[in-house]
Amino acid sequence: MRKLLKGLHKFQSSYFPANQEIFEQLAEGQKPRVLFITCSDSRIVPHLITQSGVGDLFIIRNAGNLVPPFGSANGGEGAAIEYAIHALGIEQVIICGHSNCGAMKGLLKLEKLRLEMPLVYEWLQHAEATRRLIQENYSDVKGKELLTITMAENVVTQIENLKTYPVVRSKLHQNKMSIYGWIYDIETGEILSYNPNTDDFEPPQSILSNSVNESFVSTSAPPIADSQQHDSMTKQNSGDLPVWLSQSQAERIYRGSAAIS
Amino acid sequence: MRKLLKGLHKFQSSYFPANQEIFEQLAEGQKPRVLFITCSDSRIVPHLITQSGVGDLFIIRNAGNLVPPFGSANGGEGAAIEYAIHALGIEQVIICGHSNCGAMKGLLKLEKLRLEMPLVYEWLQHAEATRRLIQENYSDVKGKELLTITMAENVVTQIENLKTYPVVRSKLHQNKMSIYGWIYDIETGEILSYNPNTDDFEPPQSILSNSVNESFVSTSAPPIADSQQHDSMTKQNSGDLPVWLSQSQAERIYRGSAAIS
Amino acid sequence: MRKLLKGLHKFQSSYFPANQEIFEQLAEGQKPRVLFITCSDSRIVPHLITQSGVGDLFIIRNAGNLVPPFGSANGGEGAAIEYAIHALGIEQVIICGHSNCGAMKGLLKLEKLRLEMPLVYEWLQHAEATRRLIQENYSDVKGKELLTITMAENVVTQIENLKTYPVVRSKLHQNKMSIYGWIYDIETGEILSYNPNTDDFEPPQSILSNSVNESFVSTSAPPIADSQQHDSMTKQNSGDLPVWLSQSQAERIYRGSAAIS
Amino acid sequence: MRKLLKGLHKFQSSYFPANQEIFEQLAEGQKPRVLFITCSDSRIVPHLITQSGVGDLFIIRNAGNLVPPFGSANGGEGAAIEYAIHALGIEQVIICGHSNCGAMKGLLKLEKLRLEMPLVYEWLQHAEATRRLIQENYSDVKGKELLTITMAENVVTQIENLKTYPVVRSKLHQNKMSIYGWIYDIETGEILSYNPNTDDFEPPQSILSNSVNESFVSTSAPPIADSQQHDSMTKQNSGDLPVWLSQSQAERIYRGSAAIS
Repeated sequence: MRKLLKGLHKFQSSYFPANQEIFEQLAEGQKPRVLFITCSDSRIVPHLITQSGVGDLFIIRNAGNLVPPFGSANGGEGAAIEYAIHALGIEQVIICGHSNCGAMKGLLKLEKLRLEMPLVYEWLQHAEATRRLIQENYSDVKGKELLTITMAENVVTQIENLKTYPVVRSKLHQNKMSIYGWIYDIETGEILSYNPNTDDFEPPQSILSNSVNESFVSTSAPPIADSQQHDSMTKQNSGDLPVWLSQSQAERIYRGSAAIS
Repeated sequence: MRKLLKGLHKFQSSYFPANQEIFEQLAEGQKPRVLFITCSDSRIVPHLITQSGVGDLFIIRNAGNLVPPFGSANGGEGAAIEYAIHALGIEQVIICGHSNCGAMKGLLKLEKLRLEMPLVYEWLQHAEATRRLIQENYSDVKGKELLTITMAENVVTQIENLKTYPVVRSKLHQNKMSIYGWIYDIETGEILSYNPNTDDFEPPQSILSNSVNESFVSTSAPPIADSQQHDSMTKQNSGDLPVWLSQSQAERIYRGSAAIS
Repeated sequence: MRKLLKGLHKFQSSYFPANQEIFEQLAEGQKPRVLFITCSDSRIVPHLITQSGVGDLFIIRNAGNLVPPFGSANGGEGAAIEYAIHALGIEQVIICGHSNCGAMKGLLKLEKLRLEMPLVYEWLQHAEATRRLIQENYSDVKGKELLTITMAENVVTQIENLKTYPVVRSKLHQNKMSIYGWIYDIETGEILSYNPNTDDFEPPQSILSNSVNESFVSTSAPPIADSQQHDSMTKQNSGDLPVWLSQSQAERIYRGSAAIS
Repeated sequence: MRKLLKGLHKFQSSYFPANQEIFEQLAEGQKPRVLFITCSDSRIVPHLITQSGVGDLFIIRNAGNLVPPFGSANGGEGAAIEYAIHALGIEQVIICGHSNCGAMKGLLKLEKLRLEMPLVYEWLQHAEATRRLIQENYSDVKGKELLTITMAENVVTQIENLKTYPVVRSKLHQNKMSIYGWIYDIETGEILSYNPNTDDFEPPQSILSNSVNESFVSTSAPPIADSQQHDSMTKQNSGDLPVWLSQSQAERIYRGSAAIS
């Protein structure tokens, strides 16, 4: 706690005065562009990963970045989604999973949790679609590889769950909603984004450049040097695959169970 | 989205390489010291406010920083609380509300939400104790002042709710759990902490220094010059009251309805 | 049933005529001063224990004297609490557990109830905070001693649960509500009351005399000779401990796990 | 509270010592014969009305003596019923309503409760069958008369609800369960019991004497002088009707809606 209070003091005495004008503007109201749904895990810092500023991200965090299907839970997820989309008019949602996720580990040994952590056990029912998919399609995969695949498949599961919300369904119908599934590797800092067209996880830049209904893209936004980006990706990856997945791991995630069976 | 991708690129090309060792260590597992429960609001950046590092804060975020009483909801809150306390061994919890909170605004005109945002309406039932307290005790307060009081009282409500969780009750019994209620003012950057002994919100430093069961305080931690801290607080506040509350506002929050009637 | 009908006849032919005036007054409406929450157990007779008259106690009885946290159940408890406090204006609540409680026995072997008594099993989830506290802190205690500690800790759990109710929170804010936790020993007739300041169970008289916000105390009430009371308590107890707990039992309950470890 | 403590002292110093043996026996375990379900109302004292002793009655009390249909609520009612019948082997249940009942008053102006006492409002949904029956069949009745009829019909509603419980259904199948519906008039001390054969409320003695599957009736029980009883009833009632209902009121309750439509 002393560490936090020290930090608080530092924030108030140096960061805040230097950015006072921004905070005063924000005090009037928020205008975030993105709803960011991620895990409670302490190693995930959305603002750091995306270098976002105060006011940019409306954030939901829970264990395992789950989105219970509409009507299946009465926790905070549904309300925050509804508020973000209906009241704030947010049109972009990112569901971000991550490597070495404790919730996903729990999902892979679910029965052990029933007595020891009953609330976690119940909560993970909202990832049951992930669990069953893994059980029925990846029985030959083990350890860290299995955990990574589970986490990645779970992001796709939660995208489907998100689509069951009335406010999301209506906006999707209007082509005013984009849903992104990200997986973040803590060890390498890399992020891949789900591409529904290929059922693959890919560097997010490449997905965006192919996107057709990105009505929100402002041409006045400072352009990103695409070449530079691809360079950096190329440096990390040989070919299209991220370095933190082995070739076979990646193929499993990218092509799904079809590649295995 | 381009802005985010640009940020992502910046993170990967500059921040990450410079801190690669930390991320590699963290990839093994997390050891956060604090469970931080706050609002989804885009203007709240816990790591910025507390100047915390990656791995320091296990975070739950929803609309209104609510903690449904144990058994009253099957959303992510209970599972994340259970995981944080039982699996990770976290012994400090901060529930952090903030000024100009949209969820609290909704709470003050709840009936209007019923049809338009039914999930938000349902969710705010977990702040019903706050709503009723305000209705029955602050009928003469209006506008921004009422909103601030509502937000502050709601933090106390959620502390009561948190105490109903089995993992919390057991740790409290062992004197191994500290629960802090914070209120954060976006406009001034100031934070006050709830003091259950006085039923007041006070600068967090003063509460900590009086705390008796702070078993977690490491004597090896770099000491904070207390005088310096108090100086800075004194500079911000004349007297005991925070600058972002008027004298009368503050009295209402601090002393409750007694000061009013 | 014949016994009851005989009793009914006796009530109507002797008790009622002798007290007809009281019943006629009460027929107009009730003005109870106390909400008494206790177990359905046939051995608990609140009016006998407290020598209360008709119209004095508004009573909730269920298995285990549980108070589900606000919003966690839709049984009669919440409604009766709300009615007692809001409609009747009751400002004092007693939650009274008792020795040899069947519900607490069930709580200590919960899994066995799942199939045989599923409703009891579900209901005891509202005492899960008690069960977990006992499991994590009293693993070395057994038998009758364990049952007594469980029952006592459960009263404290239910006090915490009660505080989550909107009508309770609002009245507590106004200092117009007192919550008492009692434990009653059937074998000795003794009652102890929870003292939150010391986290102890003590003779209720001693707690009351120290109480500061007992706004309800009427000075015109016939005074109780305190010395006489203390004498009688002293006769029953040598020292501060009640006779129905052994020295070690009592220490466990009174001082919590600290005394054990 | 002082009054209660005084009573407690009196109980411990006089009643308890004089009956110590009984309490010591009871400390071993309970063997109640009757499950008594009644209202939380402070004017109802089951032990007084039935002149029962400690250990005779297993008691459930809530607002309006409601028994939610099986599966419709997760409050304490179902658990206590299950425990009483399955664990304790109780074979007789009394559901006892009473005159001037606040819950029944609430039922007759239900919409007004929705905002002011939402938990009471929700709870009274379990008496919706009563409300609708009254609304559709007694539109010409008003005031106190309507309240009495509502209360009486509600007892019948709750008998039906009770029959939906698995443990009850099974015991009824074995002819090992008797369910009685009582209505108690506070002003006169009189009790009437529902007779399903005639759909009437009648003096309970007359129902019992006609009962065919009263397997529990012990011939060794001290006989009640029937003539004496009937005498006393005759004194109170001219004919078969209780004095606290007018002839027309009584006919309505006794013959139900058939008499009206």
